[in-house]
Amino acid sequence: MDLLNIDIPSFNNKHKDLHQKSLGLAQAISGKDNDTFLEIIEKVKAFQVAIPSWALGTGGTRFGRFSGSGEPSTLEEKISDIGLLHAINRSSGAVSMHIPWDQVEGDGQEIKAFAEEQGIIFDAVNSNTFQDQPGQEVSYKFGSLCNVDPAVRAHAVAHMKEVIDQGVKVGSKALTVWLSDGSNFPGQLDFKGALARTEACLKEVYDYMPEDWTMLVEYKPYEPNFYSTVISDWGTSFMLANALGERAKTLVDLGHHLPNTNIEQIVAVLLAKGKLGGFHFNDSKYGDDDVTVGALKPYQLFLIFCELVKGMNEDPSLDLAWMIDASHNIKDPLEDILQSVEAMKLAYAQALLVDYKALEEAQANNDVTLGQEILQAAFRTDARPIVAEARMQAGGAFDVIKCYREAKVRAQLTAQRGTEVKATGL
Amino acid sequence: MDLLNIDIPSFNNKHKDLHQKSLGLAQAISGKDNDTFLEIIEKVKAFQVAIPSWALGTGGTRFGRFSGSGEPSTLEEKISDIGLLHAINRSSGAVSMHIPWDQVEGDGQEIKAFAEEQGIIFDAVNSNTFQDQPGQEVSYKFGSLCNVDPAVRAHAVAHMKEVIDQGVKVGSKALTVWLSDGSNFPGQLDFKGALARTEACLKEVYDYMPEDWTMLVEYKPYEPNFYSTVISDWGTSFMLANALGERAKTLVDLGHHLPNTNIEQIVAVLLAKGKLGGFHFNDSKYGDDDVTVGALKPYQLFLIFCELVKGMNEDPSLDLAWMIDASHNIKDPLEDILQSVEAMKLAYAQALLVDYKALEEAQANNDVTLGQEILQAAFRTDARPIVAEARMQAGGAFDVIKCYREAKVRAQLTAQRGTEVKATGL
Amino acid sequence: MDLLNIDIPSFNNKHKDLHQKSLGLAQAISGKDNDTFLEIIEKVKAFQVAIPSWALGTGGTRFGRFSGSGEPSTLEEKISDIGLLHAINRSSGAVSMHIPWDQVEGDGQEIKAFAEEQGIIFDAVNSNTFQDQPGQEVSYKFGSLCNVDPAVRAHAVAHMKEVIDQGVKVGSKALTVWLSDGSNFPGQLDFKGALARTEACLKEVYDYMPEDWTMLVEYKPYEPNFYSTVISDWGTSFMLANALGERAKTLVDLGHHLPNTNIEQIVAVLLAKGKLGGFHFNDSKYGDDDVTVGALKPYQLFLIFCELVKGMNEDPSLDLAWMIDASHNIKDPLEDILQSVEAMKLAYAQALLVDYKALEEAQANNDVTLGQEILQAAFRTDARPIVAEARMQAGGAFDVIKCYREAKVRAQLTAQRGTEVKATGL
Amino acid sequence: MDLLNIDIPSFNNKHKDLHQKSLGLAQAISGKDNDTFLEIIEKVKAFQVAIPSWALGTGGTRFGRFSGSGEPSTLEEKISDIGLLHAINRSSGAVSMHIPWDQVEGDGQEIKAFAEEQGIIFDAVNSNTFQDQPGQEVSYKFGSLCNVDPAVRAHAVAHMKEVIDQGVKVGSKALTVWLSDGSNFPGQLDFKGALARTEACLKEVYDYMPEDWTMLVEYKPYEPNFYSTVISDWGTSFMLANALGERAKTLVDLGHHLPNTNIEQIVAVLLAKGKLGGFHFNDSKYGDDDVTVGALKPYQLFLIFCELVKGMNEDPSLDLAWMIDASHNIKDPLEDILQSVEAMKLAYAQALLVDYKALEEAQANNDVTLGQEILQAAFRTDARPIVAEARMQAGGAFDVIKCYREAKVRAQLTAQRGTEVKATGL
Repeated sequence: MDLLNIDIPSFNNKHKDLHQKSLGLAQAISGKDNDTFLEIIEKVKAFQVAIPSWALGTGGTRFGRFSGSGEPSTLEEKISDIGLLHAINRSSGAVSMHIPWDQVEGDGQEIKAFAEEQGIIFDAVNSNTFQDQPGQEVSYKFGSLCNVDPAVRAHAVAHMKEVIDQGVKVGSKALTVWLSDGSNFPGQLDFKGALARTEACLKEVYDYMPEDWTMLVEYKPYEPNFYSTVISDWGTSFMLANALGERAKTLVDLGHHLPNTNIEQIVAVLLAKGKLGGFHFNDSKYGDDDVTVGALKPYQLFLIFCELVKGMNEDPSLDLAWMIDASHNIKDPLEDILQSVEAMKLAYAQALLVDYKALEEAQANNDVTLGQEILQAAFRTDARPIVAEARMQAGGAFDVIKCYREAKVRAQLTAQRGTEVKATGL
Repeated sequence: MDLLNIDIPSFNNKHKDLHQKSLGLAQAISGKDNDTFLEIIEKVKAFQVAIPSWALGTGGTRFGRFSGSGEPSTLEEKISDIGLLHAINRSSGAVSMHIPWDQVEGDGQEIKAFAEEQGIIFDAVNSNTFQDQPGQEVSYKFGSLCNVDPAVRAHAVAHMKEVIDQGVKVGSKALTVWLSDGSNFPGQLDFKGALARTEACLKEVYDYMPEDWTMLVEYKPYEPNFYSTVISDWGTSFMLANALGERAKTLVDLGHHLPNTNIEQIVAVLLAKGKLGGFHFNDSKYGDDDVTVGALKPYQLFLIFCELVKGMNEDPSLDLAWMIDASHNIKDPLEDILQSVEAMKLAYAQALLVDYKALEEAQANNDVTLGQEILQAAFRTDARPIVAEARMQAGGAFDVIKCYREAKVRAQLTAQRGTEVKATGL
Repeated sequence: MDLLNIDIPSFNNKHKDLHQKSLGLAQAISGKDNDTFLEIIEKVKAFQVAIPSWALGTGGTRFGRFSGSGEPSTLEEKISDIGLLHAINRSSGAVSMHIPWDQVEGDGQEIKAFAEEQGIIFDAVNSNTFQDQPGQEVSYKFGSLCNVDPAVRAHAVAHMKEVIDQGVKVGSKALTVWLSDGSNFPGQLDFKGALARTEACLKEVYDYMPEDWTMLVEYKPYEPNFYSTVISDWGTSFMLANALGERAKTLVDLGHHLPNTNIEQIVAVLLAKGKLGGFHFNDSKYGDDDVTVGALKPYQLFLIFCELVKGMNEDPSLDLAWMIDASHNIKDPLEDILQSVEAMKLAYAQALLVDYKALEEAQANNDVTLGQEILQAAFRTDARPIVAEARMQAGGAFDVIKCYREAKVRAQLTAQRGTEVKATGL
Repeated sequence: MDLLNIDIPSFNNKHKDLHQKSLGLAQAISGKDNDTFLEIIEKVKAFQVAIPSWALGTGGTRFGRFSGSGEPSTLEEKISDIGLLHAINRSSGAVSMHIPWDQVEGDGQEIKAFAEEQGIIFDAVNSNTFQDQPGQEVSYKFGSLCNVDPAVRAHAVAHMKEVIDQGVKVGSKALTVWLSDGSNFPGQLDFKGALARTEACLKEVYDYMPEDWTMLVEYKPYEPNFYSTVISDWGTSFMLANALGERAKTLVDLGHHLPNTNIEQIVAVLLAKGKLGGFHFNDSKYGDDDVTVGALKPYQLFLIFCELVKGMNEDPSLDLAWMIDASHNIKDPLEDILQSVEAMKLAYAQALLVDYKALEEAQANNDVTLGQEILQAAFRTDARPIVAEARMQAGGAFDVIKCYREAKVRAQLTAQRGTEVKATGL
């Protein structure tokens, strides 16, 4: 945190005049009255997205990895990096741990206090049953919760319970379950049996959770399995969440869909049925590419946020888990995350600008042209002044990338940590 | 029927020797004992797939249609064509009507008797709320059951009730509901409201059905709507079917999936949950191409049939609605259907040849290589002798296309009906 | 044209103040100096996109069509509709005829003069060898230029020559060739032979073209053929264009690609090789959905325009054929086109705002983060004031949809032409 | 090789009777006369497919790898494993080296002799410019031949020359070039410049090749880059191959295509233009899944082989490089390869059974139904007896998987090499 040797208010001050003009104009173009406009700024200010601990290092593909430098190697260092991000953007005030890549030492009070100092809380914890750990007595090669071998299933369930235990220590309230379980070939797996075994194991984990915890059931159509995945789509996740109980919900990862899926509709349906639990944000063109949020399909991102805003308007108590889940293969991971969070906030701000009353009327009249005009009017509005205003009010920087670069953060991290350290994770 | 001026036993007799040898060898290769092998033949013999009334004429695309000749223009003529098919292949003993393209006159006894003469029964009836009929007082332009206008919804519900009424007259026991409802543009439709309205209307129709009827809820991701479809995937259909009641089930149309969907897994899951209602068979490479069954992905077809056979083994009372739903754009529709039914029977026969006990063992041992070997051994077996034997035992032809061509059926139909008649439908 | 009973200057005047502020801010945010900013406005002002004659009526799908009202039924009426659009947006000053749906009477001078009065010129002409016309002696059922029957090929070639003849009369300078030729089933077509026949026929048409004409060879992966298309991708079109000669080029239709294709890269490669001929603009989510330009993937549209701007910067003489090719199934076709052209102009304006010098530097430094920042800075800029300014300077309306609606154009057209008239075409 | 402690003739003898009957029947069903049938067997016997050195160990995904045991760690051990496969299937008589994972020591005569002993020759050699090697002075992080930095390009070119040098020593005659070069984000790369740099570098490598060498230019749409790939499709590869010269050809990897691509058409077009160079065989459902050949789409594989057989019929001198390129993530790699080669031979045999004369006639008559019947008749034929006969005549095993398992090869390899050794490669 002391790495951020930059005077943010002075940095911001340089952009003051243009910013004030832009902000005024954004309001004028939006046609919102003062109160409404201020409320939008407040909502953007309150927006927080969790940073997964594994996203702070360089990612890779099956063809290799091109490591960066100055990467964090301990949970402290990871939280410290997130603290840095949060100081700049004021919207990254949470960490999502991945166990066993992360480990909570002792009763967790020390790490919790360390995080609190930097304004960081502990969001959902993630289990890992898709990799064998060194010395692991059983193997997930043929699946974890779906495995035909009860010993493997028991091992995976025990691991998930331990993840919950660790999460409890630091104040997490949710377990994210992503299972890579599935098959690579026809004939390898009995679909029905695999589903039944998975459900039974999840039930055991669900029952183990403290009463104020939520289970987030993630789905994915393929990869790392290339023929079938047990929890392959929202329908399967929804079915399982219904079977498990009220506190089991579906988690949507934007990259976990077949080509051309209408994700915003899935979001709306899950919201309508009270089963949307959270999000893994990223962007993609081909598959689960895990690139920077908003880098390729910003309009889709906006449409998803429109559904979320509608959902939150209908039920202000709606509590969703927002998380980035990207792989930073060629960019500085911290820059990548700053860009991702920025894209989310812009999409959120634009979604807040939509005139939903007018939209409902257009829909009631089947006025398709007007419906499109209303949505696109919001999307075409330059929302950067709104996001910048919200961030500056919260003590963050006018421009996140410029601020990060002026502070020469990566050079300092590299000087401190060296070029050879690799973040744990994939 | 008297069009089939061909002596099927004599026709078959010509192939007798090679057939007997092939059949014996098929059994030897399959490793099945006599009883099991005969049982397989019996099952193939019992296999019946309904022919939709609209599939007997030439289909088209939005770019146009290249009509054929001798097409049927009345329900009688359509049933007569199906009778012809059934006489040849002994597996097309049912018609699936589409209302209002078909109309049951009076109390239906006449047409029912006419069909019975040719061994044809009436399978599921289909409603049509995706097209406006001439003079229709309201329009489905912006949806039917999802429409924001209660008058349109009421019209669609009334139509579905009428379809049930007509079906009752001729002995149908199921209503297939395919809704093209959806939207072409973001902003056009409120996803949540559209789903709620659809569910409410379906409930009204469901409650109207006689107690021995089933409702088959079809899903489709896109087309004719190009942004969203209300019932877009199996998950939505399944959710609706659960909400409607025990006699509502999901109907799977092979072409109604996003690229790369694992359809056989969906089939297995629906079977596991007791919600698989029936099938629309066809094949496709790009979208809902509606080409001849088995023309492009025969192995996928086989894998689907493996799930069906497993399901029927577990629950012999399983009663599924099998139907072809293809568009015959450039082939003689009757030849196209003959090829489709043949492909289904071959896939079924191969699926019956699978050694499921050995497969289960391989799965219990995570023996992936062996699992593949077992499935592919069945698929690589030439199942034509088994299908031919089953058909000939039932009085059908050794080779369906050759028989149809030797009888010069199309020329006779053209002579009788002319070249200008178009079958009703799309 | 006299239908547009609206005083555009007065209409515009109402938005004057906010517009002037927005425009000033757009410049400030863009960081462009005065001259550069004015140049951008000039370029947007000069932007023209041809309207295809078939896009003025309601389109449909294979499942049917929901007709609108007041549709044009003659070439004059179609040109008149385009004149209306052009009066509002000042960027639709060209018509693209489709023969035989359109017919040039006599020597064409009358219709040419009629068009000129409204500021409309004749862009590329389109042939139609994918539909049989009433009374046509041969059929395109099994292809046109690829057909195994020389008589069919000769008929198609003769038609294309006639299309050129008609185009010459009215001043067109290009022939767009879209062939639906292909196959629905494996085994139907010999790929090699079909390609050779197609090339030979195209050569004959190419040689027939006047020396100042260009041939635009369109490609499409599928539909209406569902197994193979002879000219299926840019590679095939490019290969043919090379074989035909210098004046044969590739035409890119945005909807004619397999899922996830990187279209902007294709555009860049064709530009690099001097073989990009023109564009059919539309948008799509699933296939060749032909919905309003920019309705779904505005960022992709922007990226394509970035490549075009770079290409035009490198070679200011670059002469591309821009055309809309959309199907207006549920919107008023004129509103749909207004939205499409607007989306293109916004994307163009944003692409003009990109700082290409800075981008080149970022690329030279492999500064991936910065490259994204530069592109997104332009895309996030509200370009509406720039487009509005350009349009108003040219005499057009501040807001195209609002202007069209205030003038109640559709009601007038309906009063004049009735509700039953259907535009020729699909 | 001495590992194969199994008496193949005795093993084969157990299946003799059923085999002879099956073989006779296959001929009877095929309708081929004796000479033709024997010729088919000869062709299958002559079929050889190269095994890549990296395919002998367990592969993985970006999520991890589940290693097997007894994997080869030196080039000798890899060749030894291929020798084992070849002894069983008699069709794996070539190795495809990957440098720097493999290294030819000295003048290569020793390893060449070692290979020859086991009937193994050296097929195309592969370069690797997608991974940084330890201590590498420049990085491929931002591309190799497309890199903006001339030093990186020079390094990659030098590596490719060295690969050629190593290949020359052992008698290879072709260089396979797969470039992962591309970009992950819009703005990262200038498409035009990247293509020009790539072409220039390839030209330098092409000119370095001995005169009897061929360059095989591979294409791939995405992965490991997720926005663009420089050589993304066959069109780009074809364009480059034309620019490079006569001995540059296109290599088709079955998994390197966008969803739904018609690969058999690409094969036919490349054959028609004399630019098909070779194949990487594998199978996939979603992306470049690299699973066992024929495991998912055996009919597509058959259709590709039909094009190849037609091409070889037209030009018997056609010399294509056939190679497997799969990743064996959960099966024993040797079993996986045995299954892959078997699937290819079956597809080849079935393609040889097609009555191409009748097919041409059907095509000349636009008899679509018959065209399908002809292809499917061959595909539905059980080709296993033909393949088994060809293999047994060559000294191989009746059933490759059963033979491998009875010999307990993996257990022996594990005893010899241990469980911890990892094959070099991905």
